[in-house]
Amino acid sequence: MKGVLETRELHSPALESNPLGDPSRRALRVYLPPGYSAGDQRYPTVYFLHAFSNSGATWTNVSAFGLSALDRLDALIEAGTIPPVIGVFPDGWTSLGGSQWINSDAIGRYRDYVAKDVVGFVDRTYRTLPKALSRAVVGHSSGGYGAMVMGRYHPELFSHLGSHSGDAYFEYCYMPDLPKAAGALLKAGGVEAWYQDFKRRSRETKPRGDDFTVINILAMAAAYSPKKGEPLGVELPFDLNTARLKLDVWNRWLVHDPVRFVPKFLDAFRKQKSVFIDCGTRDEFNLRWGARMLADELKASGTELCHEEFEDSHSGVTYRFERSLGFLVPRMARE
Amino acid sequence: MKGVLETRELHSPALESNPLGDPSRRALRVYLPPGYSAGDQRYPTVYFLHAFSNSGATWTNVSAFGLSALDRLDALIEAGTIPPVIGVFPDGWTSLGGSQWINSDAIGRYRDYVAKDVVGFVDRTYRTLPKALSRAVVGHSSGGYGAMVMGRYHPELFSHLGSHSGDAYFEYCYMPDLPKAAGALLKAGGVEAWYQDFKRRSRETKPRGDDFTVINILAMAAAYSPKKGEPLGVELPFDLNTARLKLDVWNRWLVHDPVRFVPKFLDAFRKQKSVFIDCGTRDEFNLRWGARMLADELKASGTELCHEEFEDSHSGVTYRFERSLGFLVPRMARE
Amino acid sequence: MKGVLETRELHSPALESNPLGDPSRRALRVYLPPGYSAGDQRYPTVYFLHAFSNSGATWTNVSAFGLSALDRLDALIEAGTIPPVIGVFPDGWTSLGGSQWINSDAIGRYRDYVAKDVVGFVDRTYRTLPKALSRAVVGHSSGGYGAMVMGRYHPELFSHLGSHSGDAYFEYCYMPDLPKAAGALLKAGGVEAWYQDFKRRSRETKPRGDDFTVINILAMAAAYSPKKGEPLGVELPFDLNTARLKLDVWNRWLVHDPVRFVPKFLDAFRKQKSVFIDCGTRDEFNLRWGARMLADELKASGTELCHEEFEDSHSGVTYRFERSLGFLVPRMARE
Amino acid sequence: MKGVLETRELHSPALESNPLGDPSRRALRVYLPPGYSAGDQRYPTVYFLHAFSNSGATWTNVSAFGLSALDRLDALIEAGTIPPVIGVFPDGWTSLGGSQWINSDAIGRYRDYVAKDVVGFVDRTYRTLPKALSRAVVGHSSGGYGAMVMGRYHPELFSHLGSHSGDAYFEYCYMPDLPKAAGALLKAGGVEAWYQDFKRRSRETKPRGDDFTVINILAMAAAYSPKKGEPLGVELPFDLNTARLKLDVWNRWLVHDPVRFVPKFLDAFRKQKSVFIDCGTRDEFNLRWGARMLADELKASGTELCHEEFEDSHSGVTYRFERSLGFLVPRMARE
Repeated sequence: MKGVLETRELHSPALESNPLGDPSRRALRVYLPPGYSAGDQRYPTVYFLHAFSNSGATWTNVSAFGLSALDRLDALIEAGTIPPVIGVFPDGWTSLGGSQWINSDAIGRYRDYVAKDVVGFVDRTYRTLPKALSRAVVGHSSGGYGAMVMGRYHPELFSHLGSHSGDAYFEYCYMPDLPKAAGALLKAGGVEAWYQDFKRRSRETKPRGDDFTVINILAMAAAYSPKKGEPLGVELPFDLNTARLKLDVWNRWLVHDPVRFVPKFLDAFRKQKSVFIDCGTRDEFNLRWGARMLADELKASGTELCHEEFEDSHSGVTYRFERSLGFLVPRMARE
Repeated sequence: MKGVLETRELHSPALESNPLGDPSRRALRVYLPPGYSAGDQRYPTVYFLHAFSNSGATWTNVSAFGLSALDRLDALIEAGTIPPVIGVFPDGWTSLGGSQWINSDAIGRYRDYVAKDVVGFVDRTYRTLPKALSRAVVGHSSGGYGAMVMGRYHPELFSHLGSHSGDAYFEYCYMPDLPKAAGALLKAGGVEAWYQDFKRRSRETKPRGDDFTVINILAMAAAYSPKKGEPLGVELPFDLNTARLKLDVWNRWLVHDPVRFVPKFLDAFRKQKSVFIDCGTRDEFNLRWGARMLADELKASGTELCHEEFEDSHSGVTYRFERSLGFLVPRMARE
Repeated sequence: MKGVLETRELHSPALESNPLGDPSRRALRVYLPPGYSAGDQRYPTVYFLHAFSNSGATWTNVSAFGLSALDRLDALIEAGTIPPVIGVFPDGWTSLGGSQWINSDAIGRYRDYVAKDVVGFVDRTYRTLPKALSRAVVGHSSGGYGAMVMGRYHPELFSHLGSHSGDAYFEYCYMPDLPKAAGALLKAGGVEAWYQDFKRRSRETKPRGDDFTVINILAMAAAYSPKKGEPLGVELPFDLNTARLKLDVWNRWLVHDPVRFVPKFLDAFRKQKSVFIDCGTRDEFNLRWGARMLADELKASGTELCHEEFEDSHSGVTYRFERSLGFLVPRMARE
Repeated sequence: MKGVLETRELHSPALESNPLGDPSRRALRVYLPPGYSAGDQRYPTVYFLHAFSNSGATWTNVSAFGLSALDRLDALIEAGTIPPVIGVFPDGWTSLGGSQWINSDAIGRYRDYVAKDVVGFVDRTYRTLPKALSRAVVGHSSGGYGAMVMGRYHPELFSHLGSHSGDAYFEYCYMPDLPKAAGALLKAGGVEAWYQDFKRRSRETKPRGDDFTVINILAMAAAYSPKKGEPLGVELPFDLNTARLKLDVWNRWLVHDPVRFVPKFLDAFRKQKSVFIDCGTRDEFNLRWGARMLADELKASGTELCHEEFEDSHSGVTYRFERSLGFLVPRMARE
């Protein structure tokens, strides 16, 4: 690595007393480009939102033969393919595996955590260009979803969005997993019983094959349809006995579907200077289609948009950050 | 085999000039129980409706080590587990792989074919007990769906229904396949191009891995949302470019969902003397849940119902006919 | 079908008192080409040897959208692509799923059954050209293996061989399955216990996922390393506790490997007029490599050879018979 | 974490001028138990050898919901389940993905690197008990293999071995992958062409589905059958055109099979104070059987042995280190 990766710790007021009891002190990984320490230049900043079941620490995982997103960011800058930027890698891990980077009564205020606490800390601590035109937010999967969330709520903070294989069109990305989750919950004897057993086996051995599907649906319910007094504080969008959809709950989910909220908040998205959206043609969560719908909506908004498809599946596509950074970073204001 | 299997041919007025140009002369396989030829007794009759992509001839396929439904019917009677019945195996093959055993403008009048032509032929030709109380209709998958169709439209013909892993709750059994079908159609360049290529490769070599999903969705559209002038005479429930659901078309599908039509035609289903419903807990089409919903509705109707779940997947479950026949046949009127 | 398929029954002296107690009366399916009944012409004859776990009846199984080998034979003749032949489909089913078409003390004398009883019956019953130059033997998988067996032992009967994805190079086609079989046998508590439970569940429900692997290895042991007094009359090539190879037993297997016996019996194979060998590049049993080795050996023998590879896996490749028939049949003597 | 993880850097004379040009300066992760910094106690030391395609850095990868080996080591000590030890995590990454922790002319002297350079550095740098009775070496997969290598060559350094799912009985763990590797190499046009393309796609996007199998076989050839002047400096144990085994090369592999070398070096293994061996019953590399054979041999040696099987597959079994550490660490000399 030619740049430097620092790990700092910040306290997040937004996460204080979060309902899951997850920490409000969080590690923050920050990438400083080559030359940062030697000069006094200010830099644009790219915020990287991680995927569900990942954390801030996942960005530094190494893998067989492949390069991480961090490696690629560093190499792009080193090679001069993109101008230097600061990279910020907030930790959004929760006991349920994630937060969709929104404010939820069942998980916590992770949108505020990023938009207020992390951005504030970074601008106070590093030589950033502290304005929307010089900030991008990018991510993959739930992180790509999070980028759209920031576009909706915080155009005053971010003028550049990159969404890789982001959750969208919930009929295709979540609904096929509802009956699978229902089967596991029925077998376990309900949400609480399943969750306790899941925690136990994750600790004693490891999660089982279908656990990811179930915890993902539970976490989405915690994000989109929290309900006080229910197990885990969530209301599921289906009946536990027959798996029949509860349309009132499902409609609470749809409010959070980018395919639905982008058209409603088009004024916010019009403020974006550049938006990058992509998805693999073999994405197992069918996110290709939501990406196409979003691209159609955003084209209508007049935003400068890059929409790409590529021949791959959902996972292991960190190499795609080269495309989003290659498109967004040159469009970020550098002074 | 202790009984005898005859193959007859019948002409079906209902299938004349069907839109796919499929034959209106059809082979009819009929199982006559041991003792049939020697006596003059009349027998109850069980109609077996085959699954999608099967045909009347599929019932006599042999497989490694396992027993066919026909073998099992014969063995049950031979062993005295159930009293002797005539078994009827109509051929519902179509160029699209099936018909859902309904009358459709894009496929043909396969419900009429069974209810009028086949039943009429059988009652004219064999020593049946020609009344509803002595007729059962059973099937697996689309054949199980077909049994529910007969229950809806023809309580005057059938008083006993058996539905194994039958299509139900379309949000779970079909919707997950819509984005997959959309991907294949997009790649092929549309419905007509895909279909021609599918026919070509089936003839020259064999269908590909995802072909079944696509032809299944096309056939369901032909059954549930036919539209004159469109390729294959069908209207798809999604946009070909973004795969976005077309709710008006999707709602045409839902009209045919047993979970929807059973409650609306509860008077018809109340006339049933016995109904058997089952599904595997690992059914890949999530049919377990539709079966549970149907069981709830039918319980409300007061019908004598047997609802079972078993540890298996969707395919290769012909052994389950032992359960439906064991429940239904003893309840059929024998005089 | 333009030709006619007859089902006859023959008694096989070779199969009398076979050790598994399987029937010595067998159905024999015979395809007679268009024009057979009207004329007095004599025809070359192609013998089709079926695969492991199949039977004579499997040839007439119908499948979704695809064509069977029988359909393809009929269509090739009808279209004039190949001249008319008689097709013979012997039934080699055994309680263990097959015989490799050899004479084995644990299974029976299935090579003799074909070479003596079936060929004799066919030549007595039909207007064949009763000589080697007018006889071909073809098959897929264990049937392709069987064709090589006939080439080794019966060049006086067959001058044309077609082996599709035939068993060869046992290190690659069988050895990877030995540890898998060992695991299942260990779990079940031995060969006899496994076999009884396998029979029971096949009858009551259906074989399990890994059953095919186990029964295949047991059947191969019955073919290649029979041993009186052992369970099922077989000696396994591995220790039941550690799965360590027993080289003396394994060497008994290798004697039956075409890659080994073809070079030793090259004089027999030199008598062949034409040999067709193919295999898919994605064959799960790695048979591609054995096919390559055999092709090398046979090229050295001077036989007229066609060796092909194609992009497909092991199963569902009946369309390949078009290639073997297209090569072999025009080379068969027609008078 | 209650203990402390340090990352140090050491220069390895053994790795200088290694044939792959991989670095001879290596990061070394060292776990110091709670209380280390406050006292002057000396501790036993456990060396952890990583698996193929991993590196020293992989030990600190975080994963969804599960615990790493490092977390588990820390928790065991914190809970008092095992007495405190120093943990050492050498980096054995190579351009080919690993080294089997042996000295190879095609990869480098990774056994010497561990046995001389790492052990020397650790004993110089930390308050270890610098003797065999207080050293254990454990690992998973190729790391478990590496533990057996240390047992063979360095009983003067290590008296405690732990091998989880270690490579053994090469007929079952490697041979099934030879034809698969052969297919990929044939398609690519040879070893060098495949390797260059593999490197390119790993850098540009990511490895493909079957790449792991191929690079694994190439790396094993580099470890077991190096040959100067050949592509990558390796001799493959099969012909590139037919995949036929080259027995002379294969025999070079077998020399390195623990099932073969443990009986030959039984005197060395007799010096072990405790040996732990396990494997999952569903191990995809069939390592269960090699483990059984090794357990039989070691039982014969009189070593104190714990041999376990567990219901799981090859990967994601870091939780098993709780079993090996629980068995070995209490048996290590603490003074």
